[in-house]
Amino acid sequence: MPRQLHLNAFLMNTGHHEASWRLPESDPYAHVELDHYVRLAQVAERGTFDSLFLADGPQLWGTLAQRPAGALEPLTLLTALATATEHIGLIATASTSYNSPYNLARKFASLDIISGGRAGWNIVTTAGAEAARNFGLDAEPAHAERYARAAEFLDVALKLWDSWEDDAIVGDKAAGVWGDDAKIHPPRHKGAYFSVEGALNVPRSPQGYPLLVQAGSSEDGRAFAARYAEAVFTAQQTLPDAQAFYADLKSRTAAAGRDPGHIKVLPGIVPVIGSTEAEARANEQALEDHIVYTHGVDRLERLLQLPEGSLELDGELPTDLPPEDAIEGAKSRYTLVVELARRERLTVRQLIGRLGGGRGHLTFAGTPEQVADAIEEWFTQGAADGFNIMPAVLPSGLETFVEQVVPILRARGLLRTEYGSRQTLRERYGLPRPANQYSTQEPALV
Amino acid sequence: MPRQLHLNAFLMNTGHHEASWRLPESDPYAHVELDHYVRLAQVAERGTFDSLFLADGPQLWGTLAQRPAGALEPLTLLTALATATEHIGLIATASTSYNSPYNLARKFASLDIISGGRAGWNIVTTAGAEAARNFGLDAEPAHAERYARAAEFLDVALKLWDSWEDDAIVGDKAAGVWGDDAKIHPPRHKGAYFSVEGALNVPRSPQGYPLLVQAGSSEDGRAFAARYAEAVFTAQQTLPDAQAFYADLKSRTAAAGRDPGHIKVLPGIVPVIGSTEAEARANEQALEDHIVYTHGVDRLERLLQLPEGSLELDGELPTDLPPEDAIEGAKSRYTLVVELARRERLTVRQLIGRLGGGRGHLTFAGTPEQVADAIEEWFTQGAADGFNIMPAVLPSGLETFVEQVVPILRARGLLRTEYGSRQTLRERYGLPRPANQYSTQEPALV
Repeated sequence: MPRQLHLNAFLMNTGHHEASWRLPESDPYAHVELDHYVRLAQVAERGTFDSLFLADGPQLWGTLAQRPAGALEPLTLLTALATATEHIGLIATASTSYNSPYNLARKFASLDIISGGRAGWNIVTTAGAEAARNFGLDAEPAHAERYARAAEFLDVALKLWDSWEDDAIVGDKAAGVWGDDAKIHPPRHKGAYFSVEGALNVPRSPQGYPLLVQAGSSEDGRAFAARYAEAVFTAQQTLPDAQAFYADLKSRTAAAGRDPGHIKVLPGIVPVIGSTEAEARANEQALEDHIVYTHGVDRLERLLQLPEGSLELDGELPTDLPPEDAIEGAKSRYTLVVELARRERLTVRQLIGRLGGGRGHLTFAGTPEQVADAIEEWFTQGAADGFNIMPAVLPSGLETFVEQVVPILRARGLLRTEYGSRQTLRERYGLPRPANQYSTQEPALV
Repeated sequence: MPRQLHLNAFLMNTGHHEASWRLPESDPYAHVELDHYVRLAQVAERGTFDSLFLADGPQLWGTLAQRPAGALEPLTLLTALATATEHIGLIATASTSYNSPYNLARKFASLDIISGGRAGWNIVTTAGAEAARNFGLDAEPAHAERYARAAEFLDVALKLWDSWEDDAIVGDKAAGVWGDDAKIHPPRHKGAYFSVEGALNVPRSPQGYPLLVQAGSSEDGRAFAARYAEAVFTAQQTLPDAQAFYADLKSRTAAAGRDPGHIKVLPGIVPVIGSTEAEARANEQALEDHIVYTHGVDRLERLLQLPEGSLELDGELPTDLPPEDAIEGAKSRYTLVVELARRERLTVRQLIGRLGGGRGHLTFAGTPEQVADAIEEWFTQGAADGFNIMPAVLPSGLETFVEQVVPILRARGLLRTEYGSRQTLRERYGLPRPANQYSTQEPALV
């Protein structure tokens, strides 16, 4: 079969554009209502997407005045969506800094069982002091320390997910023997961050463990992805940058001893679709017209770690910003924003307009054909294995994409036309089911 | 309206009898399959039960050989059941010793929103060293310390659930103002066990917060229940004991300054139903015949904190057992089991047979009329506000109860005949929606 796109629907509020909630069509309460997400999930399934994705951070971010705040907890929401869908993958963000491995491994195993093998985990280390202060810390741990903890967290989680061999349940009623204790492998882990003694209290799940997804593009983030990730979400503004990132990540993955085909690179794209190019641009402008720029300044100062009031709306960014090395927060996002502003010599106002749609992800306004062309170009030119689709307005933006862009991608042979038989998320991504590290059996053929 | 029963379906594996999985009708994999629980939930809804309940502990308990081990994580499973049901409450067990308040408060708020106000939290402190060792500790914290942490956990969680006033969302599209930051109240909590600075990142949920349930009947447990609990699950073997517990808990609740009508006492009952008394006893015997007694000895030694090999199957319990005060694990269960054995002069074998069905809860074998009589007696004689129904075999035991006992209870006016309009779980229990501790508004009339 020719190589095909992997499409992920990144669901966020009433859309990825910060002003989307102000459009007449939008419901300001939608982002905390189940029905909104059920509708989105079902639209994505009509479009034969591989997966749904929810971002997350364990803190109330920014102010309520600015835009919809708060979010249903992703594992909870995706579990509810598991029973409202049949085929689509369910990728939840969860933090390695503010969870314990035993609880989190168990929740993902439970979701994987409940969904018939459709769970994915977007592994994040969580930037920001606000989150840290909700979990007993005074300040956020240093970037390198967060990643060291994340690596140990993964090692423990993998031990827990493998702590039951696949055939540990025997179910011998006549003999009164339910399971084989020789096939249980307690981690007995003692490390720098975690001590976890016992086996998980859930059997090994359909996928073995959830699809492992990662989204940080810093040096630490790429090293982590090369070692563990099976899919990577990334923000890239230009084809050459995306090609460089793609090549770098594939070669790092090979250098880590893994098959580079077993890591899927999915850049984010914010499609703004119109029946003509002019209509698409007008749709984009209508969103920009609803931006409250003073709020954008607040957020930009926070991202760049500048004191309040230091940015001028019609000036450029200061020239003396610190290098990425000095940033302990979201490193790669910082660099992307600063480089975008400098490359295009944007004023703060223009930068906020550009970021309003996708927070650093590529915004592409055009006709359905043009959007399909852009997707095909990145996909065939070594920049992407698929895309993280981030509609500016939800649900309408996802509906338009599925009704108008998906048929073009299918006609070009770039996207499946139907799901066919039930598959796990990992099977949809063309990845093998992981062998159990403790198993004495031969691994199953893929 | 006359006082009516509150019925809770306590779902566990293929039934509460430890040997239930060995019956010909039972599926040894059922306890980790969604369909099993969907079926049970729908049966309970046909029986107009108030709620479903899942017990839990974050450890793999005992050995696999003995009986079905492991369990889907309750919050995850009940979230999946939320979309498969319409009216029934969803009570999940979660530990205050091995969770952080921010994450857990958020998950319950999310489930409460997703289910339209049907979430309940069975608050446990989690006994046992096995659990402690899965969370970085060498041994379990002392009983009193676990309860001190639980009380602080509750205080923090209540602050988090109230951190959004009910009307914090404004949704003023024209002005570009989504919410009112003056109606957000960060806890800024600094205590002995927790420091939690920021507001929750979920709006206040339909019930304000989940129904608070508690199940420990020790001195510490009762004091905790009197202060916080709205429903209490309890194991009682005799009517006088149940009446004494009921009266004690109501008076403690009043002494804590709360309305004693606002705490519902629900003893557990394991109904074993037959069309005649003889058939019911035969059904009970068929289960006992499947008990593997050597396994029962293991578990009893563990509960009583005795060295392996210290119990004789055909002897009585040792006379020199330590008093409850010396037990750091499940205190009230310890006392109940020891008193049961001594009161009825049971051998270890007989005790295991009695415990096999309900782990200390009342097992009642009889015709549907006799089961209904027992329920009515306890309900009308000051021993219960309802029952925690714990079928020995699932799903058949729940189906039989709903088909044969529920119609009798309805005919006697003791149980609702239909749900009627949608209500929150707290409304079903006849409890007021809690006011927001930070709100400057008048509380809504109930």
